[in-house]
Amino acid sequence: MKRHRFAVNVTPKPGILDPQGRAVEGSLGHLGIDGVTEVRVGRRVELTVDAADESAARAIVERLASGLLANPLIETYAIESIGSGG
Amino acid sequence: MKRHRFAVNVTPKPGILDPQGRAVEGSLGHLGIDGVTEVRVGRRVELTVDAADESAARAIVERLASGLLANPLIETYAIESIGSGG
Repeated sequence: MKRHRFAVNVTPKPGILDPQGRAVEGSLGHLGIDGVTEVRVGRRVELTVDAADESAARAIVERLASGLLANPLIETYAIESIGSGG
Repeated sequence: MKRHRFAVNVTPKPGILDPQGRAVEGSLGHLGIDGVTEVRVGRRVELTVDAADESAARAIVERLASGLLANPLIETYAIESIGSGG
């Protein structure tokens, strides 16, 4: 068994309303920040998986991401390997 | 002016309570998923910056991340370039 560390990046699908993104854009003026557009706010979930190899570990993360972490109607996700060891 | 796309990954600092991470861990059993530990739930903010070059763009993202997107008492952030163009 090896430990694999992954991140799951969950973002709102294009065209889906993103009120948190609009809130960030609305605050830019108060900070005096110019030239920032197309803000999308999502989640980032980092986790460790114990599995025989990278592909077995990734299959577990895939199941977790599609079944629990992301809402497939309104969100997409991307899985990123951020290290392995032990 | 060029368009630069960045992501800001905001995660709870080590040792800081992460109730969302605990909730995910608590749900793993219901999904029949085994071997997943150390779950941390943070935010991922993607945005576009119009700036003369990459380093000017990154300075703007840095200001935004430290001043608005992350709470420096309990969170850390990492800035990731995810493309440029136009």
